[in-house]
Amino acid sequence: MKIGMLTVSILIGFFAASNTPAAEVAISEATTECLDCHASIHPGIVKDWQNSRHAVMTPQKAMAVEGVARKISSKSVPQGLQNIVIGCAECHTLRPKAHADTFEHNGYDVHVVVSPDDCQMCHATERRQYAKNVMAHAYGNLADNKLHQKLQDSILALTKYQNGALKSAPANDATEAEACYYCHGTKLEVSGSETRDTEAAGELVFPIIKGWPNQGVGRINPDGSLGACSACHTRHAFSIEMARQPYTCKECHVGPDVPAFKVYAASKHGNIFATEHATWNFGAVPWTIGKDFTAPTCAACHISLLVNTDEAVVAERTHQVNDRLPWRILGLIYAHPHPAEPNTAVILNKDGLPLPTDFAGGLAAKFLIDEKEQDVRRKTMQAACLNCHDTSWVSGHWRRFENAIEETDAKTLAATRVMQDIWQLGLADQQGSIYDEAIERKWSETWLFYANTIRFASAMEGGGDYGVFAGGRYQLSRTLLEMDDWLKLRKKVDATTQK
Amino acid sequence: MKIGMLTVSILIGFFAASNTPAAEVAISEATTECLDCHASIHPGIVKDWQNSRHAVMTPQKAMAVEGVARKISSKSVPQGLQNIVIGCAECHTLRPKAHADTFEHNGYDVHVVVSPDDCQMCHATERRQYAKNVMAHAYGNLADNKLHQKLQDSILALTKYQNGALKSAPANDATEAEACYYCHGTKLEVSGSETRDTEAAGELVFPIIKGWPNQGVGRINPDGSLGACSACHTRHAFSIEMARQPYTCKECHVGPDVPAFKVYAASKHGNIFATEHATWNFGAVPWTIGKDFTAPTCAACHISLLVNTDEAVVAERTHQVNDRLPWRILGLIYAHPHPAEPNTAVILNKDGLPLPTDFAGGLAAKFLIDEKEQDVRRKTMQAACLNCHDTSWVSGHWRRFENAIEETDAKTLAATRVMQDIWQLGLADQQGSIYDEAIERKWSETWLFYANTIRFASAMEGGGDYGVFAGGRYQLSRTLLEMDDWLKLRKKVDATTQK
Amino acid sequence: MKIGMLTVSILIGFFAASNTPAAEVAISEATTECLDCHASIHPGIVKDWQNSRHAVMTPQKAMAVEGVARKISSKSVPQGLQNIVIGCAECHTLRPKAHADTFEHNGYDVHVVVSPDDCQMCHATERRQYAKNVMAHAYGNLADNKLHQKLQDSILALTKYQNGALKSAPANDATEAEACYYCHGTKLEVSGSETRDTEAAGELVFPIIKGWPNQGVGRINPDGSLGACSACHTRHAFSIEMARQPYTCKECHVGPDVPAFKVYAASKHGNIFATEHATWNFGAVPWTIGKDFTAPTCAACHISLLVNTDEAVVAERTHQVNDRLPWRILGLIYAHPHPAEPNTAVILNKDGLPLPTDFAGGLAAKFLIDEKEQDVRRKTMQAACLNCHDTSWVSGHWRRFENAIEETDAKTLAATRVMQDIWQLGLADQQGSIYDEAIERKWSETWLFYANTIRFASAMEGGGDYGVFAGGRYQLSRTLLEMDDWLKLRKKVDATTQK
Repeated sequence: MKIGMLTVSILIGFFAASNTPAAEVAISEATTECLDCHASIHPGIVKDWQNSRHAVMTPQKAMAVEGVARKISSKSVPQGLQNIVIGCAECHTLRPKAHADTFEHNGYDVHVVVSPDDCQMCHATERRQYAKNVMAHAYGNLADNKLHQKLQDSILALTKYQNGALKSAPANDATEAEACYYCHGTKLEVSGSETRDTEAAGELVFPIIKGWPNQGVGRINPDGSLGACSACHTRHAFSIEMARQPYTCKECHVGPDVPAFKVYAASKHGNIFATEHATWNFGAVPWTIGKDFTAPTCAACHISLLVNTDEAVVAERTHQVNDRLPWRILGLIYAHPHPAEPNTAVILNKDGLPLPTDFAGGLAAKFLIDEKEQDVRRKTMQAACLNCHDTSWVSGHWRRFENAIEETDAKTLAATRVMQDIWQLGLADQQGSIYDEAIERKWSETWLFYANTIRFASAMEGGGDYGVFAGGRYQLSRTLLEMDDWLKLRKKVDATTQK
Repeated sequence: MKIGMLTVSILIGFFAASNTPAAEVAISEATTECLDCHASIHPGIVKDWQNSRHAVMTPQKAMAVEGVARKISSKSVPQGLQNIVIGCAECHTLRPKAHADTFEHNGYDVHVVVSPDDCQMCHATERRQYAKNVMAHAYGNLADNKLHQKLQDSILALTKYQNGALKSAPANDATEAEACYYCHGTKLEVSGSETRDTEAAGELVFPIIKGWPNQGVGRINPDGSLGACSACHTRHAFSIEMARQPYTCKECHVGPDVPAFKVYAASKHGNIFATEHATWNFGAVPWTIGKDFTAPTCAACHISLLVNTDEAVVAERTHQVNDRLPWRILGLIYAHPHPAEPNTAVILNKDGLPLPTDFAGGLAAKFLIDEKEQDVRRKTMQAACLNCHDTSWVSGHWRRFENAIEETDAKTLAATRVMQDIWQLGLADQQGSIYDEAIERKWSETWLFYANTIRFASAMEGGGDYGVFAGGRYQLSRTLLEMDDWLKLRKKVDATTQK
Repeated sequence: MKIGMLTVSILIGFFAASNTPAAEVAISEATTECLDCHASIHPGIVKDWQNSRHAVMTPQKAMAVEGVARKISSKSVPQGLQNIVIGCAECHTLRPKAHADTFEHNGYDVHVVVSPDDCQMCHATERRQYAKNVMAHAYGNLADNKLHQKLQDSILALTKYQNGALKSAPANDATEAEACYYCHGTKLEVSGSETRDTEAAGELVFPIIKGWPNQGVGRINPDGSLGACSACHTRHAFSIEMARQPYTCKECHVGPDVPAFKVYAASKHGNIFATEHATWNFGAVPWTIGKDFTAPTCAACHISLLVNTDEAVVAERTHQVNDRLPWRILGLIYAHPHPAEPNTAVILNKDGLPLPTDFAGGLAAKFLIDEKEQDVRRKTMQAACLNCHDTSWVSGHWRRFENAIEETDAKTLAATRVMQDIWQLGLADQQGSIYDEAIERKWSETWLFYANTIRFASAMEGGGDYGVFAGGRYQLSRTLLEMDDWLKLRKKVDATTQK
């Protein structure tokens, strides 16, 4: 990369507002060239970047910070990148040969999709941790799991009604990309190139990328890496302030399958956040409990480096995310200890199904973390709780949470037993798919929506409503009653028919 | 109108906060008289007004602004209004003979309901554009459409259960006014007058207005004009800052029939808004992408005058609202090109029904915009997108969106075919109403709630949850399965009965 | 309590931010000792307290304020408390003999659960009012009502499926505590003590409290008092600013059973709040309409002391909460005048059931407020409305609201008649429980969710969506149709069977 040093004074809107004098920043020649056109063409993202840390901070300065305040985890950064701010070219021209979407653009080898393997130049620890995050594998964990594929097929299928019967055709790529894979991430593949007539520079050639656009957490990038840092660190500000607020997590965690945001927003913590957060400091690293914020957001419990007012570390920063979580409480028939490896498509239960539990709730234990590891994770999380709550509160809370896991698993087992009777009586067909009949959907809602919501409400003290009337125990018990009602009526009708 | 010039110094809280010196403003004698009593009686709305632009800006000063920064669109304003701020009397005593609700009040001819025809004194262009907005016709588009009336009747009917059968009586005016017409707008009619004993001035006579209060977008006003500017420009601040935030649109666009707010709030754009908007400038005219805001709100995409940082116009201001929209994606059985005229009650499909499509999805094309106009509107919208996203992103997004239209229409067609079988078999009654049986409601939910939600999620990249589990493809496919299940069981029971 | 005067200068983050010099505050010796350890151990709550009024204001100074600005309602405060700020020890060592959870802790008699009877030292009026609040009795009103217990049992029961039938076992304490009693409040009982090895002070003995943690509004405290002030005045800031924002109420009022927050957030008032509240003064006492805020929050209508800009009192502060409410619109089969006494478990209707109405909607009048009291409450509420709305608006609004009560009660009656037919035909079993069959749940949803939501939408002008498509009249009418459909099919099947 050509880097002629060029010191440009830019006015940073954000800092200007707080009367900080305009910073003198070193923008590379390459990025300066990018900005020459793109500041006009794409003012939205350029301004976002100009307001960002990347636009005012060089890796060298960032690396000069020692200890818990350090934001850049890599121990060394390529010499050429050290004394310039991180602009367009620094990311979009990195490792050109590694990216299948690299194309010649005004004399530079540019790639469209910046990947975790680019970001790791400066953020190596986060990249390494994230690779162990089940989210990094979200594409394959869905695409390579035969049972999950059946659920996806049933939900997305292009259904027709012909000769008195519903018939399903597979969903097309466009539907798949904006449905499950919107959050899970698409598989990006360069399928060709196209010439476009641009206003700024006439005819230019660009790659065509199948699966684009996408910012899903498990996106498969044209360089083969997994994930999109921009899923949470929204481009082009890549702001820690934004990632630490619950609205970021809400993008994927708001529906009945993962109602984390809704539950949080109705919790005591969510109330404090909503009322007080305008006075908090979301940018401080480390993040000091009490000083910078007085109630946790999603990031506080699950990701951020937390210290107390004595500057002692309460929780280490993690991008693995589940290392403070003993239990996985969503998405599957029963809650269970977290998978030991982030690639969950390898899991097989005793019945040969790719599930962490069998239909009776038994664990596929060898694929899951053990009780000892669960205990480590439980304590890691509790360390944060204990900064505002005494031991009796914290242990009381956890007793209830782990009771809710037992309770909901028992109720899901009851629903599964009803479903198994229905299958056995031939009133629904277990072969083919367990998700493509009306009654099978009722069954799947008991765990996919309701048991799930109850556990989130319990985990976050999200209170009575989500634990009871808002997709909680009311709906779980009602669905059980409806399954029973459905079965009884069919039995009666069948008895009549067979007379 | 008597206007004695009276210069009163009032402290404007809003500006005072930003250290602007108190402005010297010219309040008319008439408004001064209003304030004499109402500042005490109605402090809430008076303060709102005092904090507003109307309270500090005269039309003459507003007209002195040239170009895109101009907020007042009328080329001339009556002489008497030019040099005073716009206070109570300026609006509430305008055109007294035109308003059926005008009444004598302390020597003035005052009307209760200020209408778009009053506002157009200063805002003529907005008034003219809004007349072409389908929202301006929201009352008649519901009241004069026989099929929509059946749906309204079925939803609102005062149902009784007598002799083992449900019986419906029509809803009364009060119920209708606070249900569909709350958003669509009521028809305001002066039905008499009443004398009230007031604290401030003893006995006074006031008009009785049927349908009052209401601020619906298609309200029929006592002067015969259509709409309520206060639906979005909340009285009495009439603040552009408020209208540009999504909470205004949420008032009518949050339910499963039009889940725009919910989808937005879970989108990347919504995340950026939630996290960053405290630092944005919602009052700037024109509204500069990147400088004043870094992610769109509803208004940015659909209404506001946008410029880029080079001060080039990206999108012209519009109060027609659908002129950036090629497709209408809500409220009807199938998505379709927008109606050519805002009065949609005139539409007839080939079956003679007042619908823009027939039951098989065929377009009532002569009532709808053509492909050329669709393309103009598509490009108008895309012009805004392109300020933050490159062409491959924007065209990829639109491909998916228009695929989602095709996909959801195909699924709605499947549901309609099942429903037609059910009608044909006599298991439900198509005569009378297509909305007043349980199974018909299941059918209507496939398009009114779910296909709809999927399209909103696609249009706004509102993500996986609203496109899948939160009223999206999960629920659409489940409802299809339930319709099939319902039909199969009735067929079986009927077969048994007929043995 | 030993109180050696000790003047400590502490930096109050909150005030420091607004450049107020650090206050000199008198912290008691006991609290200073608490802080010695707990500032490190529990920085979150200590900082919350340091940011609070309690940490900077002595009762004596608070009592020096006269008239409507006074925040402390007790006329006298024990001498020892008057000249110190209200810190840890002031609350947690009050009345040690009254609290069953008092334990010896580093030389002090400390209790875990601070109760309304502690708070009343300074806030006697609020304590007295709150005792008349139905919320204070929320535990018993659920636990002592046999019919409500049936609903709770059916929702929470640990259901199993054995030999082709659902079987219910009672929920355990942990489930109950985090479900209905999360909001209603648990019954706290000291069941023993435990020794814990603490980092700060080695082995210490602590009480074990059954039902802990909990902050429900009707919590039964170890001193026998009812309620938790911290339900709304979130510990340890106990901030009036937080209690006045709707997020506090949302903690318990967001589900389909009490969708107050959701309705408010979609109302005109909610829109104004969302857009403008960053500029409002939530801490002002009294709270001046127009000056401190321009649209009501929950607290403004239901609790706060409101004055107008002439400083005349518009509404007196109340912690009884229902004294501005003529109707109770939630939670029961029909809307009805508010119960005369907060303990509702004593109510018996003419059929001997613990309900304020009978199944036909007739009132158990002697347990309810009469029309005269209703009128007083209606006018108390309207006094607030009239500060922004004229009489025709306010009376028009109330006419619609009371019409919605009549309308929804009539529809609930229709649903109840269908249900009674179903019971009479033996298609469901009224004995045992009226809530434990699928069809009974459909019936209960007509009033518990939908009639309820419609009335909230009407009461708060929460608009079309919640009154129609979002859990409103659409769902109410659909459920009626579904009940009818269910009944018709069973009749047909039974007719066939009996041939």
